[in-house]
Amino acid sequence: MEKDVPYDIVVHNGTVLTINAEFDVLDTGLVCIADGCLKRIEEKAADEPLPEARHVIDAQGGIIMPGLVNTHTHAAMSLFRGLADDLPLTNWLNDHIFKAEARWLNPESVYAGTLLSCAEMLLSGTTTCCDGYFFEDAVAEAVQQTGMRAILAQGIIDFPAPGVPDPKKNVAEAGRFIEKWHEKTSLITPGLFCHSPYTCSEETLRKARKLADEADALLQIHVAETQKESQETERNHGVSPVQYLDRIGVLNAKTLLVHAIWVNEADIACMADRGVGVSVTTESEMKLASGVAPIPEFLQKGLAVGIGTDGSASNNNLDMFQEMDMSAKLHKVKRSDPTVLDAREVLTLATRSGAEAIGLEKQIGSLEQGKKADLIIIDTHKPHLTPLYDPVSHIVYAASGSDVRDVIVDGQLVVRNRVILKFNLDPVVESVAKLARKIGGLKTTF
Amino acid sequence: MEKDVPYDIVVHNGTVLTINAEFDVLDTGLVCIADGCLKRIEEKAADEPLPEARHVIDAQGGIIMPGLVNTHTHAAMSLFRGLADDLPLTNWLNDHIFKAEARWLNPESVYAGTLLSCAEMLLSGTTTCCDGYFFEDAVAEAVQQTGMRAILAQGIIDFPAPGVPDPKKNVAEAGRFIEKWHEKTSLITPGLFCHSPYTCSEETLRKARKLADEADALLQIHVAETQKESQETERNHGVSPVQYLDRIGVLNAKTLLVHAIWVNEADIACMADRGVGVSVTTESEMKLASGVAPIPEFLQKGLAVGIGTDGSASNNNLDMFQEMDMSAKLHKVKRSDPTVLDAREVLTLATRSGAEAIGLEKQIGSLEQGKKADLIIIDTHKPHLTPLYDPVSHIVYAASGSDVRDVIVDGQLVVRNRVILKFNLDPVVESVAKLARKIGGLKTTF
Repeated sequence: MEKDVPYDIVVHNGTVLTINAEFDVLDTGLVCIADGCLKRIEEKAADEPLPEARHVIDAQGGIIMPGLVNTHTHAAMSLFRGLADDLPLTNWLNDHIFKAEARWLNPESVYAGTLLSCAEMLLSGTTTCCDGYFFEDAVAEAVQQTGMRAILAQGIIDFPAPGVPDPKKNVAEAGRFIEKWHEKTSLITPGLFCHSPYTCSEETLRKARKLADEADALLQIHVAETQKESQETERNHGVSPVQYLDRIGVLNAKTLLVHAIWVNEADIACMADRGVGVSVTTESEMKLASGVAPIPEFLQKGLAVGIGTDGSASNNNLDMFQEMDMSAKLHKVKRSDPTVLDAREVLTLATRSGAEAIGLEKQIGSLEQGKKADLIIIDTHKPHLTPLYDPVSHIVYAASGSDVRDVIVDGQLVVRNRVILKFNLDPVVESVAKLARKIGGLKTTF
Repeated sequence: MEKDVPYDIVVHNGTVLTINAEFDVLDTGLVCIADGCLKRIEEKAADEPLPEARHVIDAQGGIIMPGLVNTHTHAAMSLFRGLADDLPLTNWLNDHIFKAEARWLNPESVYAGTLLSCAEMLLSGTTTCCDGYFFEDAVAEAVQQTGMRAILAQGIIDFPAPGVPDPKKNVAEAGRFIEKWHEKTSLITPGLFCHSPYTCSEETLRKARKLADEADALLQIHVAETQKESQETERNHGVSPVQYLDRIGVLNAKTLLVHAIWVNEADIACMADRGVGVSVTTESEMKLASGVAPIPEFLQKGLAVGIGTDGSASNNNLDMFQEMDMSAKLHKVKRSDPTVLDAREVLTLATRSGAEAIGLEKQIGSLEQGKKADLIIIDTHKPHLTPLYDPVSHIVYAASGSDVRDVIVDGQLVVRNRVILKFNLDPVVESVAKLARKIGGLKTTF
């Protein structure tokens, strides 16, 4: 019989970045985990004995911090990573991505692509993602296997879509997905993903909102991504994309606006009034030349802003460390002010604020007693992380996903010494590589 | 007696990116190295036997490419990585960096900081750097130990500087450095580094240019880095910083202009006429909010443009992969055009074009017969590099420095399976960490 010990896991000998409201940093911290939750987070004196636990993890002087929250991705799009680059958004979407999706998406490929992306996310310190795509059941099956936390949403679009040939059934299909995954596992929270105000009719958006409210689910939507979208919405509806969504009743606190680049002051005030969350995907937005979302203005208005990678077909990886670095630097140069978006603010976006943006702030986003035990350990014994004056500076400006050593989600160790523990990675890489040989071979026939 | 074999090293079983003028890509390439040089670069048929060599390196399906060329760094500044961030340039320099340099730089600390940075550069695929700093003898001693290739230059500034208390002797000291390191080792090429047109007098700049011309050495100089510098130069000299340098005869083909952000059309035309090289340090320039150098315009005028990381106190790492990614994305979003600076162009900047900018184009920058054998092997068996449709896309948009597996410089293996071979890394990390405890402890007393 196993000895009764108070904790499942104890992590010690590292600098703890709590990312709580006070941004407390514990120089020699101790984190005790039981029943999937954080029980104690405190400074540990050198002569104090370690509490008893089933597993004791020595952070070896590294950094212990909350797992990163990727507020917007399409995980299965790893299938198309690097398939087409350096193209205008509409050309990239219409001539390459939509065609590849129509030809190659099925439950098996989506499952494989998602598993691959979960491996990439976990190995780069992301413990929670917010995903929207098609064949979302396959996404959920894959995520469930990995031990990752996620908000998952079946895509809604008023065109025949992969797995939903009849657009009239798109909201019903999303409803079925929510029904199926609601309370199936504590790690997966089902939501809705309306593609955009210009690909979903007013009727579709109203129905989706109603469904989301009934299910108390998050409704994600791409909005104000390009200047063209903004101009066309002005032309068609007489208002901006955000105002249009507000007018038809889509905006409330269970809403995540993704991109929100082409927004004006009135839009931001409206977003703040409705209490929506925002997800900015800096690298993808830069790569597609969509524009720069006004993160500093969002924060000034008190909006909950998160960072997302978007899918890896437009990024082209899911590394949230790079996303933090680029977000901080882009806004500094854009405003000619190096004090804008400092390292603390950006790290908060990638953790606590991101959790709030997707409605999980009570469970995750910081290391605080009672929250879920989602944390990562950074190995700082590396040339590019030496010396270490300020761990927050290193996380944002010097580290990359490959510096993540261990990952715990919901109190379970899922990565240890950079090895995925819950599934075998090699066959996943092999199966996607094999599929890609077919996709790449037929690229020119799209 | 060792058997006489034709090659020292043969690398095979990988995709070879030659980065030659035709941008040839060999799907299953073979690279043969002898006497420090590239002897054969060609496709290898599956049934063809491997040529005999002392070492055979299997790239295991990865990417074989030229080592990256970091055209601007201050390697020893790793000592101050993360010491001060999110501050205006003048505040950051005057209140933090200059004070820390005055207090902590000496031959021992510069040696340790440089060794650390060389480790970081080699482990992230940089085989050549162009450095300018103080106590440059110590820099050269460190670089020599690592097996890296470098252009090294003693700093010239008209203030009392670390190691050069009397500014009147600054050019003479730089001359002594060139004399000492000229032809001492084929891997180190000595040059001159004038800090800027506003910290060096006209007389100093003229003397430095004369010395550089006599020694046939590269003269590096920070120029047009901030709007303030540009405005003050207009006020003081009636012309732009670039025009001012041209007027006093500083610009010729053995000149590397670093930053070159605040330049107008006439400046660019002048730079092209004089045949200068340019080094853009995108991440550092973004972080310090200095501005965006017009890389596309430079390329249109046929200028040789390289990418640099700048020192890791303002970046805060030396990863050229991130530098490529950020450069490509920044220019796309700045010009609202995702086709600007495509992956091939950016990879060329970081290799062949960078080599040209620093005057080493005959030796390095591409995998071509007769050039020096400076190459790296990328391990692509990773989730974030799967699948692989286009290796160039992966290098620029998906990979990071930690994906570099092996590094060869001048035909010598210097990194194998991510282990530095020429020196012991652990004591270097320890010695810098120890020094940093003193620097960090006294930070508040600057």
